[in-house]
Amino acid sequence: MQRYFLENNIQTDAQIQIIGEDYHHIVRVMRMTVGDMITVVFPNGKVAICEISDILSESVLVDIKSWETVEHELPIHVTIASGLLKGDKLDIVIQKGTELGASQFLPFASDRSIVKLDEKKSGKKLERWRKIAKEAAEQSERNRIPTVEIPSSFQDLINMSKTYTTKIVAYEESARENETSQFSQTLQQLNTGDSLFIIFGPEGGLTPSEVNQLQENDFIICGLGPRILRAETAPMYCLSAISFYYELQR
Amino acid sequence: MQRYFLENNIQTDAQIQIIGEDYHHIVRVMRMTVGDMITVVFPNGKVAICEISDILSESVLVDIKSWETVEHELPIHVTIASGLLKGDKLDIVIQKGTELGASQFLPFASDRSIVKLDEKKSGKKLERWRKIAKEAAEQSERNRIPTVEIPSSFQDLINMSKTYTTKIVAYEESARENETSQFSQTLQQLNTGDSLFIIFGPEGGLTPSEVNQLQENDFIICGLGPRILRAETAPMYCLSAISFYYELQR
Repeated sequence: MQRYFLENNIQTDAQIQIIGEDYHHIVRVMRMTVGDMITVVFPNGKVAICEISDILSESVLVDIKSWETVEHELPIHVTIASGLLKGDKLDIVIQKGTELGASQFLPFASDRSIVKLDEKKSGKKLERWRKIAKEAAEQSERNRIPTVEIPSSFQDLINMSKTYTTKIVAYEESARENETSQFSQTLQQLNTGDSLFIIFGPEGGLTPSEVNQLQENDFIICGLGPRILRAETAPMYCLSAISFYYELQR
Repeated sequence: MQRYFLENNIQTDAQIQIIGEDYHHIVRVMRMTVGDMITVVFPNGKVAICEISDILSESVLVDIKSWETVEHELPIHVTIASGLLKGDKLDIVIQKGTELGASQFLPFASDRSIVKLDEKKSGKKLERWRKIAKEAAEQSERNRIPTVEIPSSFQDLINMSKTYTTKIVAYEESARENETSQFSQTLQQLNTGDSLFIIFGPEGGLTPSEVNQLQENDFIICGLGPRILRAETAPMYCLSAISFYYELQR
């Protein structure tokens, strides 16, 4: 069933009004009519199965028929902070990362990032990345659209991590040194509702100085197994493992 | 260190001769000279750290300096059979799947695959996919290049699965029905050296008739968590979970 994320929580118990882009999608793209069913997700994460009751010139009215009860969100909030990557690699991280349950993405300028974003480019990129997150959230049947922000500096990124339960950094050199226990130990210690902040370097990896700064700010260095993963693959690995651990193993 | 997969096992204890594309890569692309170090992987999976001792007109001679002892391969052999996918989606499955440790890829024509491969296209695709697997194996520092084959039919695919320890099928409808225990239970029952055959549908999913056929052939139906994953994301999810379970958790 087609999924729409509303920007406002429910106004009345009775009827929901859908406007703007979602209106356009329902009426023009999907060519739905009165009686068709859609899934509506409210900003608080609640999901309603709705029936279209009326189509007006600029809005669609729908009646709530039932509420969905299955939890589609990871039990822990995961923020993926990735160094800026070449080409469309960050698009992939955001699309796949949304399917895999991330709560937030923070693309940041790392010392070895080849891509640079000036203010104008940042705005455009942010718009694009938020659109990718919204579409992936709809497609993967999530209850929340992950947020995307661009930290203004490495220090800003570190500041953003301060409220998290646990902070880790995926470091290629740890994989090379065969460090295999930290990531799994970290997951064991987290409980439902906790938050996890994970930093990934860009293609060339984080610099030793960046890794030092992270360690001074309580980041735990983790290896992700014995194979060297590309920059865009490592976030998918972490999120898949987190889903497997909390949603399938427990 | 640059990694080269040789097609022949070591001829003598003393010196290895590298020819063909790898010769070209060492001499023309990397512009290496006598004394430079490379990693050489033999078809049996053994890995040697080598020093270039001579560069001739069509071959490079290298001396083995030491043997690598870290295991880079998953402890179980995983075959990823994916329905043919649109665009470059299967390129992504093969590239990422190689990084994540798969042993074999079997792209197959499923009832709902939109892409069709005639004999001529198959040959070209196979060449391309094998090249992607080779490059990803080099980059991710693996000991083996995964194989890629195109089954001639769905029945052929099923026949290819017969020698495997365990066979599973990732089914979207199981995710929708909130089936969450089969995948994790399957991994618990496998031991080092066992083999796992996993089938994934194309974009539209497998048909009920295909799923029935698989069940009749001892395939276990698995859900992969509460979010609906795209066709190319599901294999990455499985391989990441397998690596996490066998390489980080144990």
